Amino acid sequence: MNPQALRNVPPSSRSYHQVLVKLLRHNGLPQLRKIIDKTLPADLSPILPLLLDDDLKRILSLLIESGKAARVLLEIGRSELKPILDSIDDETLVAVCRSSASDDAADLLDGLDDDRRDAILGRLEASEGAKLESLMVQEEETAGSLMTTEYLALDEEVTVAKAIEAIREYPRKDSFFYVYTVDSDNQLVGVLSLRNLILAGPEAQLKSIMVQNVVRTTIDSTQEEVARVVARYDLLSVPVVDAQNRLVGVVTVDDVLDVIQQEAEEDLFHLAGVGTSDRATSSVRNSFRMRFPWLVVNLATAFIASSVVGLFQGTISQWALLAVFMPVVAGMGGNAGTQTLTVFVRGLAFGELDLRSSWRPVMKELAVGFFNGLGCGILTALVVGFWTGDWRLGVILLVAMVFNLMVAGVAGALVPLILKKFDFDPAISSSIFVTTFTDVIGFFVFLGLGMLVLNNWPL
Amino acid sequence: MNPQALRNVPPSSRSYHQVLVKLLRHNGLPQLRKIIDKTLPADLSPILPLLLDDDLKRILSLLIESGKAARVLLEIGRSELKPILDSIDDETLVAVCRSSASDDAADLLDGLDDDRRDAILGRLEASEGAKLESLMVQEEETAGSLMTTEYLALDEEVTVAKAIEAIREYPRKDSFFYVYTVDSDNQLVGVLSLRNLILAGPEAQLKSIMVQNVVRTTIDSTQEEVARVVARYDLLSVPVVDAQNRLVGVVTVDDVLDVIQQEAEEDLFHLAGVGTSDRATSSVRNSFRMRFPWLVVNLATAFIASSVVGLFQGTISQWALLAVFMPVVAGMGGNAGTQTLTVFVRGLAFGELDLRSSWRPVMKELAVGFFNGLGCGILTALVVGFWTGDWRLGVILLVAMVFNLMVAGVAGALVPLILKKFDFDPAISSSIFVTTFTDVIGFFVFLGLGMLVLNNWPL
Repeated sequence: MNPQALRNVPPSSRSYHQVLVKLLRHNGLPQLRKIIDKTLPADLSPILPLLLDDDLKRILSLLIESGKAARVLLEIGRSELKPILDSIDDETLVAVCRSSASDDAADLLDGLDDDRRDAILGRLEASEGAKLESLMVQEEETAGSLMTTEYLALDEEVTVAKAIEAIREYPRKDSFFYVYTVDSDNQLVGVLSLRNLILAGPEAQLKSIMVQNVVRTTIDSTQEEVARVVARYDLLSVPVVDAQNRLVGVVTVDDVLDVIQQEAEEDLFHLAGVGTSDRATSSVRNSFRMRFPWLVVNLATAFIASSVVGLFQGTISQWALLAVFMPVVAGMGGNAGTQTLTVFVRGLAFGELDLRSSWRPVMKELAVGFFNGLGCGILTALVVGFWTGDWRLGVILLVAMVFNLMVAGVAGALVPLILKKFDFDPAISSSIFVTTFTDVIGFFVFLGLGMLVLNNWPL
Repeated sequence: MNPQALRNVPPSSRSYHQVLVKLLRHNGLPQLRKIIDKTLPADLSPILPLLLDDDLKRILSLLIESGKAARVLLEIGRSELKPILDSIDDETLVAVCRSSASDDAADLLDGLDDDRRDAILGRLEASEGAKLESLMVQEEETAGSLMTTEYLALDEEVTVAKAIEAIREYPRKDSFFYVYTVDSDNQLVGVLSLRNLILAGPEAQLKSIMVQNVVRTTIDSTQEEVARVVARYDLLSVPVVDAQNRLVGVVTVDDVLDVIQQEAEEDLFHLAGVGTSDRATSSVRNSFRMRFPWLVVNLATAFIASSVVGLFQGTISQWALLAVFMPVVAGMGGNAGTQTLTVFVRGLAFGELDLRSSWRPVMKELAVGFFNGLGCGILTALVVGFWTGDWRLGVILLVAMVFNLMVAGVAGALVPLILKKFDFDPAISSSIFVTTFTDVIGFFVFLGLGMLVLNNWPL
């Protein structure tokens, strides 16, 4: 939340690094301070891993001075951050925490070993340490874990002139845009934008110009709920209250941006059976570890499908042509099931659906499955009829296709609804169940029909 | 971008509707005005489709007064908005456009027929109409199409006192948080937060307190690029400049939030072969139309797989057991391919990858495929060996699995890279190509090996 910036194209970290080191070595402190003040955290962070210990220490003290230290450190990837944190002494880390927003400081301490974290917390002032500890015990992925405890809250009785004085004295270096108002019991009662303050007369009381009934979120709201509120109302930040409606923190839109990115991506990765930290650039070892378990689970379900096919081994040795069209039955069921699944998983993520009220959408999937099955089935029957000259096979495939795509539709809709109902993440395990359903039922209907028709209805 | 709000839980639109209509009918205009002023657009929009024409007209005039009309209308779903826009007369629509932010007005006009749009534009003041037209001709999904042309830009020579006066006189009802500074040639030279203005002395010139070298984006940048800049630097808004570095607009974080949500979702839906507007609540007809074409394309590729199996019909009628394990080969190849594909499609979306520099990631997928294939292959060989007692089959499956998962890894990586290189959306068509590869090669290797081994290596 900072309008400062160097320039649009991020500077090459290497040449940047050389400039910084040169200034450090030749006592160019004032220039160095100026550069660091002007550069955004995301552009400074790539340099830190390149610095020698002594240089790092001096740059850090400048970052602490500018209030950016924790933000810059947090922009560094986890694997590179560890050795840097190890090389920083406790005293410096304490100073980093003191100079930074509490949510950033808490995130930074979260990355340390328990012993070290306790040591740092012990060296902070009691109130500051308690604040960070209270942030660290918040349940993950809730408003409590996203919020900062640095915000400006003033009594509603205060005048605009006093409020502007408070803004002048407010130590936080980050920009901020709202002032919250509370009553004598610290209950959240209103909000003002800085523009409201500029427009009002100096003697007006805040309560006469503030907006009442602020959109708020509770400390135990999930991060998805927080993101939904911020997106729905186009907010820049949302105040967080406890069960007694007392103001305890603020979640800013930059953190919500990260949540939204992360949630949509999680669904995508989970549906494909990939870990959310799996990247094209991950090591072979890490990618193997993240993907192998999912493949083994799928292997187990593939064997279930195999055992269904096994029931019809005799029929297949008599009519090998049935085996030729097995990929069509399985493939189409899987594809149709995945389509429905994706729509329902996203519907659940947006809170648009629940099991109880979803009778109509499920019936709709049955209908869509019927029409898709009929369309694809007729095409298949025509192709197979002309290809093999055996029109019985075409009819078998048509019936199996309609049946299988209806199953795919209902399973693709019901499986995620049921998983969600029992508090499982529908994105993670739905596709296993759905493809098992479509494979088992698809093969059973196709091969079973094949056995019946081909044995009893000679050409 | 508005701190106003009614309360956290969105009120039921139906009871809300009743209150509003009662106030309308009993001349409760002052109260009505107060309610509308306090209520956020997202909460007002569900009521509009419930109103009769006369009521709608009166509510709209209050919305126009409060500057919210376009935002409220834009929150209504496309299918419900059409009849509402049809029932509003031209004069009222002109007033809606005049009272709203230019990006919202342009979006609203974009939804009209050409004739009606031209009529509305013709009735606006020339400068206002030209502004909206210039926004509507911007290429879709670029900074130009996202930006608003309402922002406060002041000459860098101006004093703080003058700037505060300009803020007082600035008509836009929305809150805003930055003031941009330009030189005499309208080139963007700096930015100030409102807090900077509050902190500075009234006689200071803006250029002495502004932040220089602002992060900016050009009018033809893609919306992904804009989103990446805003997310990287935690910005609330980013100024848009033309090729001559002249300030032409501002993109705010609430629009970026929508872009990020939309982009991640697009990849998810495209990978599953679903239209981005497909919802659990869509009609049967719409879902059928959006899903059927994808299923037909998949049907075609399934026939390619079938024709490969067809080559081995003789072998299958002799060894029907081979058909039993076909689902294992096809399923595992498809799953492993989808894993790799997902990682690469997201890597491309983040701009982390391109074809030229991806030699290492592709080789890595080959290695991951080898180890996953070895692990799954050994498990399969053991299960099949004990199950059937025919260990030759286990060995065939082991070799086919290793081979197929290596193919899945390379295809899952190369197909999206190549599609991107030729400017196709890798999320849309990658999975078709990859599953065709894994099916064709998987069946060929498995059945081919089966034919060779079973015929030449009697038990």
